[in-house]
Amino acid sequence: MKRYKLVLEYDGGGFVGWQRQNSGFSVQQAVEEAFAKFCGHPVDVFAAGRTDSGVHAMGQVAHVDLDKDWDTLKIREALNWHLKPFGAQALTVDEVDPGFHARFSAIHRVYLYRICDRRARPVLDKGRVWHVGTRLDVDAMRAGAAHLVGHHDFTSFRASHCQSASPVKTLLRLDIARQGDEITAWVEARSFLHHQVRNMMGSLKLVGDGRWTPDDIGEALAARDRRVAGPTAPATGLYLVRVDYPT
Amino acid sequence: MKRYKLVLEYDGGGFVGWQRQNSGFSVQQAVEEAFAKFCGHPVDVFAAGRTDSGVHAMGQVAHVDLDKDWDTLKIREALNWHLKPFGAQALTVDEVDPGFHARFSAIHRVYLYRICDRRARPVLDKGRVWHVGTRLDVDAMRAGAAHLVGHHDFTSFRASHCQSASPVKTLLRLDIARQGDEITAWVEARSFLHHQVRNMMGSLKLVGDGRWTPDDIGEALAARDRRVAGPTAPATGLYLVRVDYPT
Repeated sequence: MKRYKLVLEYDGGGFVGWQRQNSGFSVQQAVEEAFAKFCGHPVDVFAAGRTDSGVHAMGQVAHVDLDKDWDTLKIREALNWHLKPFGAQALTVDEVDPGFHARFSAIHRVYLYRICDRRARPVLDKGRVWHVGTRLDVDAMRAGAAHLVGHHDFTSFRASHCQSASPVKTLLRLDIARQGDEITAWVEARSFLHHQVRNMMGSLKLVGDGRWTPDDIGEALAARDRRVAGPTAPATGLYLVRVDYPT
Repeated sequence: MKRYKLVLEYDGGGFVGWQRQNSGFSVQQAVEEAFAKFCGHPVDVFAAGRTDSGVHAMGQVAHVDLDKDWDTLKIREALNWHLKPFGAQALTVDEVDPGFHARFSAIHRVYLYRICDRRARPVLDKGRVWHVGTRLDVDAMRAGAAHLVGHHDFTSFRASHCQSASPVKTLLRLDIARQGDEITAWVEARSFLHHQVRNMMGSLKLVGDGRWTPDDIGEALAARDRRVAGPTAPATGLYLVRVDYPT
């Protein structure tokens, strides 16, 4: 038995999310079925994070155990051939130590959130950004984001069904920048609560459009109450960019 | 009669190109039909450049004459409403001097060409890049590109059906850079020959994969013969980014 680490890119728009669901086709199902087709036995694939329906990945990490020693380039080719119709691809496949676990070994996660804040609908980036029809104030959003960086109780930005043992997390980075009609937010932490990035972005958008002041973010955080924070930003703007492990 | 300047974004994948064709639906037809629907009379729309089938635009410029004085924001809203199903949108609409001509007044054009040079197929950038399955040498491509910048006879990189009066053009910029698995080429000139950017990129790809030396680009240019240069790069990686006019 050998363990392999996969780095996956996928278009969240074509899936009900990472995890198998009765409601539709998941990335996990696509990847597990692709493996079954070429290695001849059913497999379980474990991911670093269960991305929600519509959330994209540039670098989701997963691991799988196969019953014989495969050439990693052949695994990638076979996997990508079967994944081709579904908007997912394996970027790399590497053999790893049997103690490696995509989720529990991860020490750092990087997300990107993209907002298009112009009147015209996105065309080339359709399905790849959150479209906000009015111009947002990036400086105000940045001032609001400063309240969130650090070690905090993020209850106000946590989904009601979040299974994390504690609402306390350390947000290492929340950098907001504009390029033309696009606002990008780079968000990094060891781990996140369920919906944490989308809930933070939903509140920061209220700061950007002037309905909230930057300090309202700090007050929402301090309240430790999901009801006082803003709405959840759409999945379509969110990307799991990278997951890091100890070297 | 008032003249209006439009800046348009479109996904080239959904059109047979800018110009009306019997073979399919063009951007020109989409825009002219959108105008006819809300202003009540047929219009002719003139573009800065006739992008080929599959070529994208982030900032194509066009002009149109309307028989009455419209509010420019209303034009944009009405146009975008009708263009919504077709993968095209007007980013801005402005009233201009009757002497303005989208094509003949243009003094500067900027194109972007995107290559994805990794083994796995592009997923999030599907239809937005030229996928090349092997790693290209960007430094060699940059050295090759240096031969093309400046005032030259570009016959070797000109489509056989090009209607330009002269094959002599001044290439102001051809900057090649890598970011991860993507190579971008920013290309600027007052004007271009038909297929010039795609033909230059097709030859530079041969330098990138080692089949040509950088100096082979200079020799191909000097030959003034289309048959000695490389193939035409696919339309899917090309974007008309911007067209400039005298202020």
